[in-house]
Amino acid sequence: MKKDQLMFGTAYYPEYMPCDRIEKDFLMMKKAGINTIRVAESTWSTLEPRDGEFDFTFIDSILKEAEKAGLWVIVGTPTYAVPSWLAQKDPDVMVINSKGREKYGRRQIFDLLNPTFRFHAERVIRELISHTAQHSSVIGFQIDNETKHYDNKGKEIQRLFIEYLKEKFETPERLNAAFCLPYWSNSIADWEQFPDITGCINGGLAGEFEKFQRQTASEYLKWQADIVREYKKEEQFITHNLDFEWRKFGADIAQDGYSYGVQPGINHYEAAKCLTKLGADIYHPTQDELTGAEIGFGGDSIRSLKYENYLILECQAQAFKYWTPYPGQLRLQAYSHLASGADGISYWNWHSIHNGFETYWKGLLSHDLEENPTYDEACRIGREWSEIGAHLIHLEKTNQTALLVDNHSMTSFQWFPVDKDLSYNDVVRWMYDSLYEMNIECDVVDVNGLDPNKYKIIVTPALYCATEEFLEKLDMFVKRGGVLVSSFKSFVADEYFSVYADTQPHRLHECFGMSYNQFTEPGKAKIKNTPLKYFAELLTVKGAESLADYEHKYWGKYAGITRNAYGCGTAYYIGCYTEKTVLKEILKRAAADAGIREKSMEYEWPVIVRQGKNKYGKQIHYVLNYSEEEQKIRCVWKKVKDLLTGELCQEGDTIVITDWDLKIFEEV
Amino acid sequence: MKKDQLMFGTAYYPEYMPCDRIEKDFLMMKKAGINTIRVAESTWSTLEPRDGEFDFTFIDSILKEAEKAGLWVIVGTPTYAVPSWLAQKDPDVMVINSKGREKYGRRQIFDLLNPTFRFHAERVIRELISHTAQHSSVIGFQIDNETKHYDNKGKEIQRLFIEYLKEKFETPERLNAAFCLPYWSNSIADWEQFPDITGCINGGLAGEFEKFQRQTASEYLKWQADIVREYKKEEQFITHNLDFEWRKFGADIAQDGYSYGVQPGINHYEAAKCLTKLGADIYHPTQDELTGAEIGFGGDSIRSLKYENYLILECQAQAFKYWTPYPGQLRLQAYSHLASGADGISYWNWHSIHNGFETYWKGLLSHDLEENPTYDEACRIGREWSEIGAHLIHLEKTNQTALLVDNHSMTSFQWFPVDKDLSYNDVVRWMYDSLYEMNIECDVVDVNGLDPNKYKIIVTPALYCATEEFLEKLDMFVKRGGVLVSSFKSFVADEYFSVYADTQPHRLHECFGMSYNQFTEPGKAKIKNTPLKYFAELLTVKGAESLADYEHKYWGKYAGITRNAYGCGTAYYIGCYTEKTVLKEILKRAAADAGIREKSMEYEWPVIVRQGKNKYGKQIHYVLNYSEEEQKIRCVWKKVKDLLTGELCQEGDTIVITDWDLKIFEEV
Amino acid sequence: MKKDQLMFGTAYYPEYMPCDRIEKDFLMMKKAGINTIRVAESTWSTLEPRDGEFDFTFIDSILKEAEKAGLWVIVGTPTYAVPSWLAQKDPDVMVINSKGREKYGRRQIFDLLNPTFRFHAERVIRELISHTAQHSSVIGFQIDNETKHYDNKGKEIQRLFIEYLKEKFETPERLNAAFCLPYWSNSIADWEQFPDITGCINGGLAGEFEKFQRQTASEYLKWQADIVREYKKEEQFITHNLDFEWRKFGADIAQDGYSYGVQPGINHYEAAKCLTKLGADIYHPTQDELTGAEIGFGGDSIRSLKYENYLILECQAQAFKYWTPYPGQLRLQAYSHLASGADGISYWNWHSIHNGFETYWKGLLSHDLEENPTYDEACRIGREWSEIGAHLIHLEKTNQTALLVDNHSMTSFQWFPVDKDLSYNDVVRWMYDSLYEMNIECDVVDVNGLDPNKYKIIVTPALYCATEEFLEKLDMFVKRGGVLVSSFKSFVADEYFSVYADTQPHRLHECFGMSYNQFTEPGKAKIKNTPLKYFAELLTVKGAESLADYEHKYWGKYAGITRNAYGCGTAYYIGCYTEKTVLKEILKRAAADAGIREKSMEYEWPVIVRQGKNKYGKQIHYVLNYSEEEQKIRCVWKKVKDLLTGELCQEGDTIVITDWDLKIFEEV
Repeated sequence: MKKDQLMFGTAYYPEYMPCDRIEKDFLMMKKAGINTIRVAESTWSTLEPRDGEFDFTFIDSILKEAEKAGLWVIVGTPTYAVPSWLAQKDPDVMVINSKGREKYGRRQIFDLLNPTFRFHAERVIRELISHTAQHSSVIGFQIDNETKHYDNKGKEIQRLFIEYLKEKFETPERLNAAFCLPYWSNSIADWEQFPDITGCINGGLAGEFEKFQRQTASEYLKWQADIVREYKKEEQFITHNLDFEWRKFGADIAQDGYSYGVQPGINHYEAAKCLTKLGADIYHPTQDELTGAEIGFGGDSIRSLKYENYLILECQAQAFKYWTPYPGQLRLQAYSHLASGADGISYWNWHSIHNGFETYWKGLLSHDLEENPTYDEACRIGREWSEIGAHLIHLEKTNQTALLVDNHSMTSFQWFPVDKDLSYNDVVRWMYDSLYEMNIECDVVDVNGLDPNKYKIIVTPALYCATEEFLEKLDMFVKRGGVLVSSFKSFVADEYFSVYADTQPHRLHECFGMSYNQFTEPGKAKIKNTPLKYFAELLTVKGAESLADYEHKYWGKYAGITRNAYGCGTAYYIGCYTEKTVLKEILKRAAADAGIREKSMEYEWPVIVRQGKNKYGKQIHYVLNYSEEEQKIRCVWKKVKDLLTGELCQEGDTIVITDWDLKIFEEV
Repeated sequence: MKKDQLMFGTAYYPEYMPCDRIEKDFLMMKKAGINTIRVAESTWSTLEPRDGEFDFTFIDSILKEAEKAGLWVIVGTPTYAVPSWLAQKDPDVMVINSKGREKYGRRQIFDLLNPTFRFHAERVIRELISHTAQHSSVIGFQIDNETKHYDNKGKEIQRLFIEYLKEKFETPERLNAAFCLPYWSNSIADWEQFPDITGCINGGLAGEFEKFQRQTASEYLKWQADIVREYKKEEQFITHNLDFEWRKFGADIAQDGYSYGVQPGINHYEAAKCLTKLGADIYHPTQDELTGAEIGFGGDSIRSLKYENYLILECQAQAFKYWTPYPGQLRLQAYSHLASGADGISYWNWHSIHNGFETYWKGLLSHDLEENPTYDEACRIGREWSEIGAHLIHLEKTNQTALLVDNHSMTSFQWFPVDKDLSYNDVVRWMYDSLYEMNIECDVVDVNGLDPNKYKIIVTPALYCATEEFLEKLDMFVKRGGVLVSSFKSFVADEYFSVYADTQPHRLHECFGMSYNQFTEPGKAKIKNTPLKYFAELLTVKGAESLADYEHKYWGKYAGITRNAYGCGTAYYIGCYTEKTVLKEILKRAAADAGIREKSMEYEWPVIVRQGKNKYGKQIHYVLNYSEEEQKIRCVWKKVKDLLTGELCQEGDTIVITDWDLKIFEEV
Repeated sequence: MKKDQLMFGTAYYPEYMPCDRIEKDFLMMKKAGINTIRVAESTWSTLEPRDGEFDFTFIDSILKEAEKAGLWVIVGTPTYAVPSWLAQKDPDVMVINSKGREKYGRRQIFDLLNPTFRFHAERVIRELISHTAQHSSVIGFQIDNETKHYDNKGKEIQRLFIEYLKEKFETPERLNAAFCLPYWSNSIADWEQFPDITGCINGGLAGEFEKFQRQTASEYLKWQADIVREYKKEEQFITHNLDFEWRKFGADIAQDGYSYGVQPGINHYEAAKCLTKLGADIYHPTQDELTGAEIGFGGDSIRSLKYENYLILECQAQAFKYWTPYPGQLRLQAYSHLASGADGISYWNWHSIHNGFETYWKGLLSHDLEENPTYDEACRIGREWSEIGAHLIHLEKTNQTALLVDNHSMTSFQWFPVDKDLSYNDVVRWMYDSLYEMNIECDVVDVNGLDPNKYKIIVTPALYCATEEFLEKLDMFVKRGGVLVSSFKSFVADEYFSVYADTQPHRLHECFGMSYNQFTEPGKAKIKNTPLKYFAELLTVKGAESLADYEHKYWGKYAGITRNAYGCGTAYYIGCYTEKTVLKEILKRAAADAGIREKSMEYEWPVIVRQGKNKYGKQIHYVLNYSEEEQKIRCVWKKVKDLLTGELCQEGDTIVITDWDLKIFEEV
């Protein structure tokens, strides 16, 4: 990819097509302004139809025609779906998870640690990468796809886990103590007594195992990256398609969810270390449900892994019936990705597939392979990007707010939920979405990668487990002038999910100027005259100001939300799950405390502003209308130019944005 | 059975009774006018208590007493429940299905292809049939019962399936191409690579397997029929108790559903070939939920298999708490079966069972084995049938409308649903019930058995997959003057579920004068000012008239329902799931186009008219009141006689039908 | 425990604590007035860390410090959770149930019959009891904990079950006849044909197996008691923590239910035989849902096992978020237990656990191990009990009403439910709660332990199966002047679930003066102008008076509730599930018939009166206010003294009870 060109791409699988259409497809792509195709991931059985017999017919055709057409190519290693002969060769290739041994058929159900799998994966990767790396069209490689640990509970991972525990705890006694294993007679006296993890009912130990499972997935990616690195050219990148927690909404097979929150099956921060270019996929509700929040959350998460721009390697074209885009939405979505810091997007996928599990996960083209309204809108995007792309690429953000996320706290929340209807990611999204809707941009930062010095505000949704060191870090952050906003169930337990046996919130109760030792189902309790849901901690202020007491016959003497001046900073604690209006009030005050006064905060959802500096050093303001209503708003910037129309706009001018449309202002 | 006598029968199991009551039971049956008993199916462990040791005590008693009492007997082969010794002898007798190996206990959970099972089934059939065939009371045999494939995924069926695929596709390449197996690396290079089908995620291949599974069930029936044929007398019939998709409604064990739609586990059209008399069971909601629609649908389906009259081998007496009949309902149900073309009915069952899984699937007699209101009503039916039965038997229908059904499209709908709450049979019933409620009688025809020349209207609910030849047939049907009414998701894919890679609806878009390449969840869209549910195709007319455009901000430019004059005929396409009122409007216009002007169409549900010619060549009109309200209607027929009262009635006269009552008019 | 001192106790597990706190904990306990700790159950892996290696460090510390602090100790055998080394030693230790072999991790998932388990359980019991029995603080032993059969379907229990059947039925023919096994070919000709019970679909046989499973659990307890008896001192008791059906309400893991009704997994009446002191745990909704009904039901059940006082060995302190007690509730609950006949209570548990499955099943202390409002309220209870306990202990009740319960009928209801939303325990609680809310105290009596002579009223909720002998007993009870109140589905079947093949209700239809042979879903039917739910038998009176006919177009000719004078007594039959208001009307009339005229019946829930005689021979009346509203009521007793305040109160005086508060009156 040329340095200054946005990627406008699509996944492409001639292997799946009922007829040879490469030339015609590439013509249609070029017409749409598409400049990149992503190929080969999941096509192992085509690449290696028999053990050791390789066939590059499709790859060669693609590369040849791509070169002719001037398309760049991202080559994916094909390993996330195994051919049947490999599963036959060694039954242990198929993963054993909580439900038993998986049966051949689906993708992503093998044991990443299995030696047979590794042997064959390595061979096919070497063959494919060595075959393609020198080709001029190939700009980079994607290793595997949406890799996770697949709930691996096979013998090998359990053996390695015990080794890991031995190294970490040295003696069974320390292991017992860390996780309170004597409870229900689960303590062990010798390492040999360690039982099969499958039946484990100790949340802490199960959480430790899940952390270990995630590590194996990251290490597997690093292993692939190391192999690819042996062959690739300097300028070719190594990327991976990171994905998010897939939230089901009870629809139909293969059409049943969207990218909702933090990924439980792999740790993005760890996984990203071996990549030279960040990549991800984000799928989200559309039509009347299009809010942009998932695009924001996903983008802010990926960008914050290394504070770099990233590629959206998969995003929806037509997808399925719920997501057929209204006029304007495909374009709004595309710009939303850029507005979060993406350097381009790639549709999944080009054509719709005519048979198979994802027949109705439709691409830019419908099954008739002809032009259609969605394709037409893609053409408009391509046209615009070729015109103004240089102003949009490499958007640089310097957010002052960090929202902290943590895989391990997510696991703890599964074991110790506050309510069956409130997951960890629900709390994360409750806080993220509130910031998003207020137009306070934030980084979404893994706890392992936090540098507090970067931020004025740190927000912690349900950060259940935290080490002493980390708590010290947060304490110092506030002391030195930072603003901390923490939700209920933050700082409860140590890294083994052991609840700290002293005043809650552990170590930070002084910082928050309050403590609690009881909590309750909120029942009929209200706060600020709005109902509560799920959970309420009964806070006793000790120095803090109560921003809101519970409204309830018996809990009225307790605070629900507190604010405390501490050192040079301020600490907010929100002890209950409130309506978003209440949360936003708190966040607004916290922003004021932190001295954050973005002009964009004058707007609120459905008018979303996302901003940054472009490569010319100019400030860019995306103003996105996520509604079917036309928006008339007052310009808050001194003087800006609409990059799409060239029109100038001054502070106080009225800006009109039609339904599902947007403006991109560059400060002048 | 005497040629001209309606069967009035009941299943009878003295094997299950706590005392010897055969004589008393037969007396009570005779009093009720019952003339036939159906015996022995599912009593294998009584007939053959030990491997090779046969005991005909019960059969002999039954036959002896039946002869005395003048009752006819249908003898069932006992094979649909196996004795425990057989399951012990060969563990492979128990079927392996998607959930693993079934455990002994229930009926219908063995492997129809297992050689041990076949050996013993053959032996017990030969013993039983040879023992009973010469008995004067035996009028016919039922082979097995409600046979289905039981989701057989055992080794043997998988082996045979691969043989079948080899023969059909010859090379793995063709197989791969037909089902798009390269997707997710599922393609195979050699037949040996073909994996266990259990994990299959390719809808097309899984559909092909399910079709094959159904074939094995039909072949098994043919195998039984061939054995029976060696022994039976010329005049003795071979029948089978075909049943329908069992729709659960979330009630209690053994009382949890009813006969809803097309049977997924066997293909009736194939299965019927080996039978000399059609038979079926139909269970349906009663009390406030009695509509007659299931009796209509089931009867129209069975009759259309061979365009012959049929026997209802099982129907509900009291059954369970939801179905305790209101006064009049047992009788209304009995006549409804005749009105669909049945030559008689048989209750399941005579007595209620005192222990076992179906204790509360109550028979004509309650557990006290005494007379009761339901039995009393049966006596009335028996009395009436003995008087007017000759006018009712062999009802001959010549319907002008065919509703097409297809097992294979049903499977495709499970893999590629348009909505989790809309099954294939829901679409079938949506269209069938609309016709039924409008008093347009139709045949329910398997796609494999369609002769278009028989019909003026062909209705296709969600006929997802269709071969080129079949589409050609429909095209010709319209060209030559027929009226085609097709729902959304018709003619999408070929026989392997591969979506046709050109303009939709494939091959018939010219016939329909419209095409589409996008579809959507309807959301807030309406049509004809009524809300839509589940699914909406965005139709672009190309010659057709739009009968209704979508009412929606973005989809308003698309049609939802179209009508096209094509050749000498007309083609309607209904691209969305509408309320039944909208559908009926369309069907009414289609009927007018086809020149169908039945007088019965002046009435509508709850007044249902079913008609045909009796053996005297006279036209019979059943007028059935499916409501608790008395109905006063105007007579539309010139001059008719009420067969039950003998009263005459002329056009324009007022006909009064009390709640859950009926009239049977014979034209004079 | 001193004879005349109420137990005020708590479970205590220093093994689970992150630090050594025994001394500090005992100080805090003493401050709260706690006099007893319950220890060691479930700590096997601590007591015996390796096979045969015993470690009594914790026990010894506890006993030493307890003696110093003057605390009594109940030592529990640790067997209800096994150490991992035991599961490793013999895989058959883990139970095989309907879902297969359990995996190590949880408690209560082993095979009670497994010889390896028995060998090691015996050894650890002998070690522990011999080690502690002579210690002066040890007042008694708890054997195992909440023991049930764990749905054991392993080989050994199946082998023993066949032995049991052989002994009971002698021949396969009798077995077949008892359970109607010929149905669906399940009959056997030889005992060797008896199949694996797992797939059994015969409710009667499955019920017999479940009865047998329960027996094995009781026998296991007896086996433990016999071992303990070899070591214990005369004055030390043997108790067990009996628990109730755990009704889930869809909350979170480990926080998902409460003690609802009759226990399915063991028969309390059988189990209690080996105990020298009755014990139980009762958990129940709190906050706005606190009604006292579970405390009443559980206590009345346990007390009636031997007509003795009992210990509540576990009750909730803070437990989880739904149960954080409102001010006053912890105390109200404590007194409610005494008011049912408990001689004391013990919290589960002292401290909250810092890691493990029940981290959020909070104890008296929160995780911070400091004082808190719940602990403070416990201190008040302790103070009061030390003052007035002597007046409260050994409450003697002489109830005139018996409510009969039956495990076996419960099983039958699972196989033959009248509605998926109405369980056996729902019917039990419908009747119990009505009595409770009317302040008619009753004994909850196992059918196997009934002495009719003790009672004036016998109430039978859904007593589906009953032997001829038992029915004769009830018939005599009424003849001699008793009042029988039976619900629908009483007296339907024999002890094998075989429906009696004659007039229903079997044998007692004369007693009730009515019979029925049909029933129905009530649908729109009403009775006494209130809606019905779930089920309605259509009763035909034959001598009885109909207290209410159904209000329904077709069922109006049938009675729903009848009353019959029979011999010197009266029999009521309630053939349908009514609202509680209707049921209470009937119960009121039945009480009048029986001559029960308690003054407490002038009050009704939320004012609950529970009464008995104390050891001074004085009548005690607990008046409990289960509401957040203050109650003002008229005193109905001639002259009573409030034990808590010392105030006197006379008939007609106004009594004021604040929210969640109570009075304890002693007659003067």
